[in-house]
Amino acid sequence: MEITSFLRFLFLVLLGVILLGGSWFFDNKGGEPVGLDCSLNKPCCTSKNRIQAKSDLTLDTLKQPKPIDHLTETPHHPLDPLTLQEINKVRTILSSYPPFTTSFPAIHFVSLDEPDKSVVRSWNKGLPLPPRKASVIAYLNGQSNLLTVDLESSQVTRHDINQGSGYPSLTFADMAAVAKAPLTNPEFMEIIAGRGVRLSDLTCVSLSPGWYGEREEGRRVVKVQCFSNEGTVNFFMRPIEGLTVTVDVDTREILRISHTGAGIPIPTATDTDYRYSAQNKAEEMMKPLNPISIEQPNGPSFSVENGHVVKWANWEFHLKADPRAGVIISQAVVQDSETGQPRSVMYKGFPSELFVPYMDPSDAWYFKTYMDVGEYGLGLTSMPLVPLNDCPRNAHYIDGVFVTPDGKPYVQSNMACVFERYAGDISWRHSETPFSGMEIREARPKVTLVVRTIASVGNYDYIVDWEFQTDGLIRIKVGLTGMLMVKGTPFQNINQVGEAERNAMTGTLVSENVIGVVHDHFITFYLDMDIDGTNNSFVKVNLENELTSPGESPRKSYMKAKRDVAQTEKDAQVKLKLYDPAEFHVVNHGKRSRLGNPTGYKVVPGGTAASLLDHTDPAQFRASFTNNQIWVTPYNKSEQWAGGLFTWQSQGEDSLAMWSERDRPIDNKDIVLWYTLGFHHIPCQEDFPIMPTVLASFDLKPVNFFEKNPILRASPNVEKDLPFCRASVASA
Amino acid sequence: MEITSFLRFLFLVLLGVILLGGSWFFDNKGGEPVGLDCSLNKPCCTSKNRIQAKSDLTLDTLKQPKPIDHLTETPHHPLDPLTLQEINKVRTILSSYPPFTTSFPAIHFVSLDEPDKSVVRSWNKGLPLPPRKASVIAYLNGQSNLLTVDLESSQVTRHDINQGSGYPSLTFADMAAVAKAPLTNPEFMEIIAGRGVRLSDLTCVSLSPGWYGEREEGRRVVKVQCFSNEGTVNFFMRPIEGLTVTVDVDTREILRISHTGAGIPIPTATDTDYRYSAQNKAEEMMKPLNPISIEQPNGPSFSVENGHVVKWANWEFHLKADPRAGVIISQAVVQDSETGQPRSVMYKGFPSELFVPYMDPSDAWYFKTYMDVGEYGLGLTSMPLVPLNDCPRNAHYIDGVFVTPDGKPYVQSNMACVFERYAGDISWRHSETPFSGMEIREARPKVTLVVRTIASVGNYDYIVDWEFQTDGLIRIKVGLTGMLMVKGTPFQNINQVGEAERNAMTGTLVSENVIGVVHDHFITFYLDMDIDGTNNSFVKVNLENELTSPGESPRKSYMKAKRDVAQTEKDAQVKLKLYDPAEFHVVNHGKRSRLGNPTGYKVVPGGTAASLLDHTDPAQFRASFTNNQIWVTPYNKSEQWAGGLFTWQSQGEDSLAMWSERDRPIDNKDIVLWYTLGFHHIPCQEDFPIMPTVLASFDLKPVNFFEKNPILRASPNVEKDLPFCRASVASA
Repeated sequence: MEITSFLRFLFLVLLGVILLGGSWFFDNKGGEPVGLDCSLNKPCCTSKNRIQAKSDLTLDTLKQPKPIDHLTETPHHPLDPLTLQEINKVRTILSSYPPFTTSFPAIHFVSLDEPDKSVVRSWNKGLPLPPRKASVIAYLNGQSNLLTVDLESSQVTRHDINQGSGYPSLTFADMAAVAKAPLTNPEFMEIIAGRGVRLSDLTCVSLSPGWYGEREEGRRVVKVQCFSNEGTVNFFMRPIEGLTVTVDVDTREILRISHTGAGIPIPTATDTDYRYSAQNKAEEMMKPLNPISIEQPNGPSFSVENGHVVKWANWEFHLKADPRAGVIISQAVVQDSETGQPRSVMYKGFPSELFVPYMDPSDAWYFKTYMDVGEYGLGLTSMPLVPLNDCPRNAHYIDGVFVTPDGKPYVQSNMACVFERYAGDISWRHSETPFSGMEIREARPKVTLVVRTIASVGNYDYIVDWEFQTDGLIRIKVGLTGMLMVKGTPFQNINQVGEAERNAMTGTLVSENVIGVVHDHFITFYLDMDIDGTNNSFVKVNLENELTSPGESPRKSYMKAKRDVAQTEKDAQVKLKLYDPAEFHVVNHGKRSRLGNPTGYKVVPGGTAASLLDHTDPAQFRASFTNNQIWVTPYNKSEQWAGGLFTWQSQGEDSLAMWSERDRPIDNKDIVLWYTLGFHHIPCQEDFPIMPTVLASFDLKPVNFFEKNPILRASPNVEKDLPFCRASVASA
Repeated sequence: MEITSFLRFLFLVLLGVILLGGSWFFDNKGGEPVGLDCSLNKPCCTSKNRIQAKSDLTLDTLKQPKPIDHLTETPHHPLDPLTLQEINKVRTILSSYPPFTTSFPAIHFVSLDEPDKSVVRSWNKGLPLPPRKASVIAYLNGQSNLLTVDLESSQVTRHDINQGSGYPSLTFADMAAVAKAPLTNPEFMEIIAGRGVRLSDLTCVSLSPGWYGEREEGRRVVKVQCFSNEGTVNFFMRPIEGLTVTVDVDTREILRISHTGAGIPIPTATDTDYRYSAQNKAEEMMKPLNPISIEQPNGPSFSVENGHVVKWANWEFHLKADPRAGVIISQAVVQDSETGQPRSVMYKGFPSELFVPYMDPSDAWYFKTYMDVGEYGLGLTSMPLVPLNDCPRNAHYIDGVFVTPDGKPYVQSNMACVFERYAGDISWRHSETPFSGMEIREARPKVTLVVRTIASVGNYDYIVDWEFQTDGLIRIKVGLTGMLMVKGTPFQNINQVGEAERNAMTGTLVSENVIGVVHDHFITFYLDMDIDGTNNSFVKVNLENELTSPGESPRKSYMKAKRDVAQTEKDAQVKLKLYDPAEFHVVNHGKRSRLGNPTGYKVVPGGTAASLLDHTDPAQFRASFTNNQIWVTPYNKSEQWAGGLFTWQSQGEDSLAMWSERDRPIDNKDIVLWYTLGFHHIPCQEDFPIMPTVLASFDLKPVNFFEKNPILRASPNVEKDLPFCRASVASA
């Protein structure tokens, strides 16, 4: 792959769902789909309908940061995302760019082309911004174009054509058209009628086909599958099982109709609608709890400067919405506990790829091996957050500014939130027992800062939290909720299933005629750590069992920590082992504590699960970034997306595992740490018709970074500072 | 070991700390230690000094459960702990029991002898209580007596002498006397003088010796080590390194003085005092955050009936303080989401043992392989919680009623708290993307109920939370904070340390002359699961990689879930493996969901770390319950303490691993699940002089227990129900 520029992607497509006979998403009159523009993209398009979390009652005491006025917004920081005006300018420049003057391409992605890291690191507030550039992915005549547009010179300064495998994912227009394509096919219509589904109840989705060899090569392909939405909004629970239509995206040609589901009933809609308004006897069966709320009557302790620079307690970082990553955290800096000076911790962090293989080799399921970041985009699928429920009452909301396929900007409102979290937890504490003769009871409440986005990638909802602690720890948490991807089955009870059939079942019977198929989630984070500067090393601190010599000690064994500095990338490919444990430090050997310990942060694994797929399986080869739980690479501006830049139908040659295979030196270099959170999911009845959230997290934790506990001086809660609350007017 | 009765322990001793020259703990006049009675045990002794978390401002709106009046308390439930009056009666009965009439033994433990499980399970509110009995451990003339006292007949109905290894841990009086014993020894006094420590600054602690073969056999032994408290309350950071005095507890004889630390300086007191009052420039260096609080102006949604039966949302359970376990949760029952009927989940759960091996084979360190539950007691070391800081403002506090060595009761006030937790998290949610044509944004806030105790076992503080969720999940969380156990060293900077010396270092230089020694924590939970009754099975649902046949599928591999029902105990000895994953279900094969799935709960591992010690190491043999992460045993009333009932100097023959070795049948039986949370701890400078909390947790999670998501009907937050808060009067 020739292409090397930075943050350069995509207008990604979602599950291309169309409602047939009822209303088209893009056109309520049932006509042709039209290009998505801001006025149509209602729920997430304007900032006018911003949902206010604040009531009149509390507005006077809340001192929230001001929301951005996108119409007048200008960049203030080298990493600030492109504004509405800048995106419009990119479109104007591209319109007069010779290769596109006769035929304007489909715009898949427009985003800031970030200045070089050295430029950003040397920039300070008050200095002029480095030149603003846009990275654009545009598709025209079967070619994926990657362009750099200089907004100052109004020139296209770089133009590459993707020579490798993979495509940008679909535009909204493609998505709608493709999902509609089967409707003109008599065979398809006959099958639908035979399955007893009315056209007016049909919901079809456009699924990424993965990549499985020759027959998908050389053309953009989508797999269309359909559901019945009769009697429920939760069409995901009503699959027309075993019907898959393979469509060529460019020609709209139906390449193949596979129908293996004849005789499998459409599951009923019973209890599938999860909306509160649809529940019977809700209050009777589950008495609501008394109101409970996180309250900050003096307002939050954080500020958001110019919409992007967050300052809270001892932390400062840059925050921006991104269509592909959801939210990107940059230049995270923490104050030294002794000097008060800012010290760099992480240059950039974001979810780089999310691999979701389903574990069913049958024709309608084998290809379901999604790469949700590259194929759908965590930002594009981040809908407006629900105030008081997705984020607590004291949250501040952040918008994204993204781009339609025709190159116009739109506002994805309230797609992230920032809030202070207090959960009744304890930062540190100690009590002396009476036996010491000292009556000491010291405890400190734990308050943290959370940045949250939630991507709704079709059925699944991914909650991604960055939680900053005053002790210097960053916790990265992923929550999984939303709907299962389920499979229709003839069975209504497990007792009807014979031995052989049971062996062939690829999941759990979660409702009548519904199997929740076993699957995994692997979410790989890009973590460009800069501990006190860019020259860092990766150190495995191995814990090993040591045997004592005869007569040395009454103990026969003990555990010893041994430092092993990784020299090259392969030294840093880590598979975690319970009985061969280690800590994983990123340290700066050039910066020592007063005691001579190198300053560092460690990644503390959590949410560990490994992919069991065979390494020669095409699905695993594309997702080979999940072959290890930890990788370290030397910094390279072009290596950011673990599954490759052009992920749709990618063949795996542009991926973290391939880059790491070069085994470059990483000691005392600018290095990037990659960590993969994993989840095995065997569904159960509790996951039907919507899943309680499952959470996992990992930490970035200071290790000899501070001279001592950085929150030794933290103040305790005292009664006089806490708010005085009354029941609301409504319940009083 | 002959002894088989239930919940029968101990008056355990803490770190026996004495302050020399200043004030004796038990006697401010510097005279002989006296027996601890309620009037002396000030911080935790009476209910009069109960700390009220409620201010006048909010008292009127808080509807907290009423605190117990211990003077008039009577039992209402078969599992209610012994009351003050009952304990007094036990003492009276024992006083006239012939073996004790001439010489009253030291009372180590008095606790309810719980009625048989079948009796408790068939008891219902309104029925008379089963006969009340006490289990007593008393030490006299070198013998450990285990007695059952019938409170109705006023008879001792059972009296066994411990024939196996191990002792009850020390009484307060023993502890004080033993720690004082070296002071009469000229060699010891000379060493102390030589190390430059004044007697008035000396703090000595009595440490459990573990068990390492012959020389500790046949007598009760303690290891006494000392610190300087000059200039700091944090004497733990000022060790007189390498000085260990081995003392016979019964004779007070000095058995051995080991001094290997000559020339090792006492670390300075700089920055070791962690009290807020001792901080310089606290507000300047760390600006306090704006006030933040969890508020419930209508009061909590839970009730605590008669001080012990907690009812909240869809949960009900019995809660009691216990001197050994801290808090015991019994008869946890959840409402069926469809019928509203109560369904049993867990008969009893508590932390059964806590193994803390330090990783240094030298003479002053090899024996530090503590078993904190059996040797010190998590309840006895649970000091009054700090309102607003250890527990949030909306917490309700619970007392323990424990026993002094002379058999008198005392109240350990506020040693547990119960509160509703809202952290801004999400129970479940889903947004539809615009592409579905449905504008759906459904989200539910997550509110949980937490039961918290914090044991201060000498230097370390262990936060143990039981968190109940409305979706049926129980999360068991352990937080580690407090102080490191540190080792003195001649070095002030790592650069002074040569290669060989560095290899010999057993920890991290965390301050000048201070090494934080590498160590582990393993906390093993007893979980008597009763899923819809007592007849349960343990099922490993193994996830295995399957290869497809040639031509079967474009996929080469997928992952398959295979159920394996454990027949005997050895089938259920589980070492976790990342690349050989499984789910671990406790199911009731006799109780099926409407779909035919057996109802069940799974243990979801978290906080995994395994002991690397050699199995033949005496320390590991005693703590062989950490050889696996999961065990399942058939229910046996006498098998509750994973490291044995008499833990002090135990040799490991009465332990979980030994019981399990019998390999008894466990399929379709009343079974007990054991799970061990593990922590490896390589200290770092951030742990000095007090450690930020490290948390790990595991879950008990319903799996096909409910017919569907049990919180489908949960109501969302709406603004009108939330409180109206103002800044407090103080800050207004």
